Amino acid sequence: MAGTVSSSRGCVTLRGAQIRDLLDAKHNVLFDCDGVIWNGETAVTGAPEVVSLLKQRGKRVFFVTNNCTRPRENYVQKFCRLGFTDVAEEEIFSSAYCSAAYLRDVARLQGKVYVIGCGGVMKELQDAGVPVVEEDSAADREPGTSIYNCPLDPDVKAVLVGYDENFTFMKLAKACCYLRNSECLFLATDPDPWHPLRGGRITPGSGSLTAALETASSRKATVIGKPSRFMYECIASQFDLDPARSLMIGDRLETDILFGSNCGLSTVLTLTGVSTLEEAHRYRDSEAPEQKDCVPDYVVESVADFLQALEE
Amino acid sequence: MAGTVSSSRGCVTLRGAQIRDLLDAKHNVLFDCDGVIWNGETAVTGAPEVVSLLKQRGKRVFFVTNNCTRPRENYVQKFCRLGFTDVAEEEIFSSAYCSAAYLRDVARLQGKVYVIGCGGVMKELQDAGVPVVEEDSAADREPGTSIYNCPLDPDVKAVLVGYDENFTFMKLAKACCYLRNSECLFLATDPDPWHPLRGGRITPGSGSLTAALETASSRKATVIGKPSRFMYECIASQFDLDPARSLMIGDRLETDILFGSNCGLSTVLTLTGVSTLEEAHRYRDSEAPEQKDCVPDYVVESVADFLQALEE
Repeated sequence: MAGTVSSSRGCVTLRGAQIRDLLDAKHNVLFDCDGVIWNGETAVTGAPEVVSLLKQRGKRVFFVTNNCTRPRENYVQKFCRLGFTDVAEEEIFSSAYCSAAYLRDVARLQGKVYVIGCGGVMKELQDAGVPVVEEDSAADREPGTSIYNCPLDPDVKAVLVGYDENFTFMKLAKACCYLRNSECLFLATDPDPWHPLRGGRITPGSGSLTAALETASSRKATVIGKPSRFMYECIASQFDLDPARSLMIGDRLETDILFGSNCGLSTVLTLTGVSTLEEAHRYRDSEAPEQKDCVPDYVVESVADFLQALEE
Repeated sequence: MAGTVSSSRGCVTLRGAQIRDLLDAKHNVLFDCDGVIWNGETAVTGAPEVVSLLKQRGKRVFFVTNNCTRPRENYVQKFCRLGFTDVAEEEIFSSAYCSAAYLRDVARLQGKVYVIGCGGVMKELQDAGVPVVEEDSAADREPGTSIYNCPLDPDVKAVLVGYDENFTFMKLAKACCYLRNSECLFLATDPDPWHPLRGGRITPGSGSLTAALETASSRKATVIGKPSRFMYECIASQFDLDPARSLMIGDRLETDILFGSNCGLSTVLTLTGVSTLEEAHRYRDSEAPEQKDCVPDYVVESVADFLQALEE
């Protein structure tokens, strides 16, 4: 048989002229944030310049993050603080923002949301005008209050699960009770199983809390964040995007790269975050066809590899 | 083709003479507790008499429960309170007791256990002489203490997850950090996803908390409770049991009946608990061979159906 074997496609290491050709062919660049343009509170070297130069070259830039801990307005501050001085709120699509948009525009929720999540999710729901159940943790801690008798709000029509450092058994049990009503929607901001912390520790992600609730409720959550297509549809509903002229750059094969594949975008894995080149090769060399969608088209060491092509 | 189709086997409703024949053929009777001999704090009508009569007829009776909330000694009190006056501590095998036995006798743990679980688990570990990490929740709540800097005990060599109404994000995050060490064992008392509460509510089970930790740690727990064989092996290590002469009576197809099948026991589904006859028929009529192990050999409305045969 002529031609290359399909299992060897993808994972092309981008260099010099290839980077220029790729950038010439694309009009929209979608960046994941954590592990791509920054790690925690440290910008990836060269990333602010890459973002600025892309904009100066007339590209449209979007930030697509599964991180639901901040509202959009806080993200603008973080971008500024880390040297990304020309990023607008409208360019930032977080799983918290998109979850609120989904409840308002797609589900057209008539009722309240019970939230397992942090301030970022709460603020975006509030900004979108989606009513949430006010948690009364003090009442929940009162003697005699337990999972047997804690009050449940009859207006709850959706449960939304995101990253929540104040997650408790009581929250899990309440969410579980709400989900017994099959008409109650079950959403998760994102499927991320864990996140790296500084010092080699890790922290459980939204996907971990969602797994607990899925098991307890015998239901499956609708996941808003990558790799689901919804965040792309959310951008596309506000900007005119041609997938063939769009590039997704991310550090996690199972979320960012799969998201790009699911949406028909070209994909670039950057090695400054979670996934490794070996993992990408494992997906490429796997026999299972469904694993191919986690193979990035291209690989760079860092987004800084784009700098030279942009500075010429 | 002659003979019955294999998919129609099982789910035989036990009546009169069949019950007598079955009891004649068996020497050991293993009961699940919740949903079988009691529901919460109410004994199933006739269950105490059935247990007493079985013993008077020379049968050996064991209680095999995934419930890990009580130590064995508390179970004896509960049995008494509900009218089961001749049950000995040695006949009670809970997932908490068996988890402690596993860590001591099978894993021969050299180190401490980090426990997500309640008093029942703690007490059984203590009785078995297995050292546990003392949780300092007050220290964890101090300002400045977080998942980034909370102390981790270097002697932890196992994580054990059971039902825990005091489950928090901090406990999940700590367990997750301990499991980064691939030599740290990962055990779960039982896989129960949820439990019915009075008043139509449900509460998340050990399986729900385990799912959160499995997702966050990218590892799979070794599950001690039913349907795993270990609880049978634990009984068999203390009593001489012939599986062919043993009967398992339970209310949950995916735990009790599957456990019986896994251990080569005859199985009886009782309809006073979680699973329904329709669910049993669905397993029986399924095309998937692995579902056959969830089909009970026999079905009774209640363990009280054994009364008449025993009273004759």
